[in-house]
Amino acid sequence: MSTDAVALIQTLGQQARASARQIAWAPSGVKSDALRDMARRIREAKHAIQSANALDIEAGRKKGLSEAMLDRLTLTDARIEAMAVGVEQIAALPDPVGEMGEVRRRPNGLMIGKMRVPVGVIGMIYESRPNVTADAAALCLKSGNAVILRGGSEAIRSNRAIHALLVEGLRAFDLPEEAIQLVPITDRLAVGALLKADRYVDIIIPRGGKSLVARVSEESTIPVIKHLDGICHTYIDRYANRAMALEVAVNAKVQRPGTCNATETILVHEALSEWLLELTDVLIQTGVEIRGCDKAVALDPRLKVADRKDWDTEHLGLIVNLKVVGDLDEALDHIEAHSSRHTEAIITDHHGRAMRFLREVDSASVMVNASTRFADGFEYGLGAEIGISTDKLHARGPVGAFELTTLKWVVFGEGQVRG
Amino acid sequence: MSTDAVALIQTLGQQARASARQIAWAPSGVKSDALRDMARRIREAKHAIQSANALDIEAGRKKGLSEAMLDRLTLTDARIEAMAVGVEQIAALPDPVGEMGEVRRRPNGLMIGKMRVPVGVIGMIYESRPNVTADAAALCLKSGNAVILRGGSEAIRSNRAIHALLVEGLRAFDLPEEAIQLVPITDRLAVGALLKADRYVDIIIPRGGKSLVARVSEESTIPVIKHLDGICHTYIDRYANRAMALEVAVNAKVQRPGTCNATETILVHEALSEWLLELTDVLIQTGVEIRGCDKAVALDPRLKVADRKDWDTEHLGLIVNLKVVGDLDEALDHIEAHSSRHTEAIITDHHGRAMRFLREVDSASVMVNASTRFADGFEYGLGAEIGISTDKLHARGPVGAFELTTLKWVVFGEGQVRG
Repeated sequence: MSTDAVALIQTLGQQARASARQIAWAPSGVKSDALRDMARRIREAKHAIQSANALDIEAGRKKGLSEAMLDRLTLTDARIEAMAVGVEQIAALPDPVGEMGEVRRRPNGLMIGKMRVPVGVIGMIYESRPNVTADAAALCLKSGNAVILRGGSEAIRSNRAIHALLVEGLRAFDLPEEAIQLVPITDRLAVGALLKADRYVDIIIPRGGKSLVARVSEESTIPVIKHLDGICHTYIDRYANRAMALEVAVNAKVQRPGTCNATETILVHEALSEWLLELTDVLIQTGVEIRGCDKAVALDPRLKVADRKDWDTEHLGLIVNLKVVGDLDEALDHIEAHSSRHTEAIITDHHGRAMRFLREVDSASVMVNASTRFADGFEYGLGAEIGISTDKLHARGPVGAFELTTLKWVVFGEGQVRG
Repeated sequence: MSTDAVALIQTLGQQARASARQIAWAPSGVKSDALRDMARRIREAKHAIQSANALDIEAGRKKGLSEAMLDRLTLTDARIEAMAVGVEQIAALPDPVGEMGEVRRRPNGLMIGKMRVPVGVIGMIYESRPNVTADAAALCLKSGNAVILRGGSEAIRSNRAIHALLVEGLRAFDLPEEAIQLVPITDRLAVGALLKADRYVDIIIPRGGKSLVARVSEESTIPVIKHLDGICHTYIDRYANRAMALEVAVNAKVQRPGTCNATETILVHEALSEWLLELTDVLIQTGVEIRGCDKAVALDPRLKVADRKDWDTEHLGLIVNLKVVGDLDEALDHIEAHSSRHTEAIITDHHGRAMRFLREVDSASVMVNASTRFADGFEYGLGAEIGISTDKLHARGPVGAFELTTLKWVVFGEGQVRG
């Protein structure tokens, strides 16, 4: 491992740890003011950001990045404005730090409860989209955490430009500038060093493709909050409102098929075989390739036959799996076996079935009569998200400022001793 | 790795996973009734448990276990009664599963909130004390989780006897008996296999000595909730009530010095040098060896000089470190540098200093005017604890039924689609 990269991460880690204590209890108003100031600076420095971004794009083109990657890298006017608005929305959210609750009096008079506090230092490892720099830093500051940002090498100039503005915002409000750090080098060894910096970093959050997330989970000696697949299901119950079911199922697949919360498999109750043909008509007209179970293919011969792998695949495009199920139990069994525990929805007018689905589906988000596409931090009112967790512990689903905090027990006594 | 042990863990894991779905939404009343029934069976089968326990003790003696270990292994009448009472207390607690909260209406009419649900399957690895079998199983059942228990080989006969009674309780209330499983063999390879069973097990909780916890953290591919050291501090502020401070500081060290929540270091404000001599008198009379900083030794030459390692050592006996600090900041800095983040206490009558200590000390439990010895599940009203976490994520401090659950997002729609 390069000693330079290790030494650099060590220094950043020490600085982050020291600043974490200072930033943890910064007043809510100061944090919000600093965030609004950062948003203003991002807007005002739009041209400077875009100049840096143009250099990244040029370098990316020379390196032969795909058009899709170049698109994700590009900071248009609209994307810079969205970045500033995101930071302002995070400023406007309630501050989770210091919330105290569940305080109960014990028989010996001790009052025991819980206080919400920052986790400490967050290590954020992400790819191409430079707007993540602002989102992640804003959520960490809001929640009183220090952060070490490690963006993709293809976006290093854009990230540096955005980071400089964020640091100016910290400085303007006398907040420690080491609370938002960007790894300034593109050496990949810095990632390895960050993943082992367990003396300084409390959580690692990877955000990017599967291979990045896999590498991070494998190598990290620090707890990881991760997002793996988004294999989401929409189940159309026999008691579904059919018009609603059609609109929601199609939206869940096609509104933005490349996202993790797009539906990959539609499960249809067998009582709805006529409706199924309406659904396949619309999907085919929209250019969606449908891979069906045997029953679905028997109902509509235009479908391809799904193979075993399809049910466990995040297609991330205009392909959908379609399965006919005999009842709610079969739908629940299929979801239990194939879901990546990201987001599942039921379309039904039957209250008992809706509640059973909500209870029994073991996923980060479970929805009734809504498109799975809503499962993100912005739609949930978190302003933005630093990631979407498919893990079960600590944080599930969109991870916002609240999820970047933890609880400690607080005990108020009057001299009690244990007998 | 022994294929037998691997195959066995595989089978137990599959059964636990299947039963987890059934047990997750078992009605609260049925779970409580089953727990009370288990407590009754434990009381009634006291002699059978003690016969099995006698064989363990005999085997332990032959193996040359220390008297301390033999004592921890022994199930006296009082300990069996305490085990039954613990299970009854867990039965009487509120059921955390299904709690729904923070439901808020979004601008598009979606109602979005969170529901508390079981984690799934818990893997519990513990040493010598057989009463942990009943505590852990009861907490898992209460929280709707299946559990795979792996006790110490020295307690295998006692654990089997207790486990059989718990299974009878499940059966009597038509609950799946695979929801409480005991690894029936003592082969150490079974531990290795359990730590890699990430397809079936959601959390591993080790409870035992440092080497066990270290091995588990190192080898496990499953998230671990762990307890490392208990290096706890009690800080006596200049505004402390001196009589209270004396009583609490002494209690925190000597009431049961071998426990993780006993205080290892007492920090004393320099304004209290006269009081310090009162404290050292009492401690020395009680047989405590005091290792002091230079200032403390200058005040009381009876003290040994602490060496650097002492400040980072869990003495687990009648030894205490004593340090004189110039102010609250120095106390906070010392705690930040040396605490294992288990439990810290301040003794003060000054409100602002109490609140600052509560906010700024980053430990699982932070106390004002109380003995650190209170930091456990029973004293906090959790009935029992499956462990005490010194980790920062998911659960900190005593882990009870509530901490064995997680949250999922629930979304109530009326056909909303994303635009």
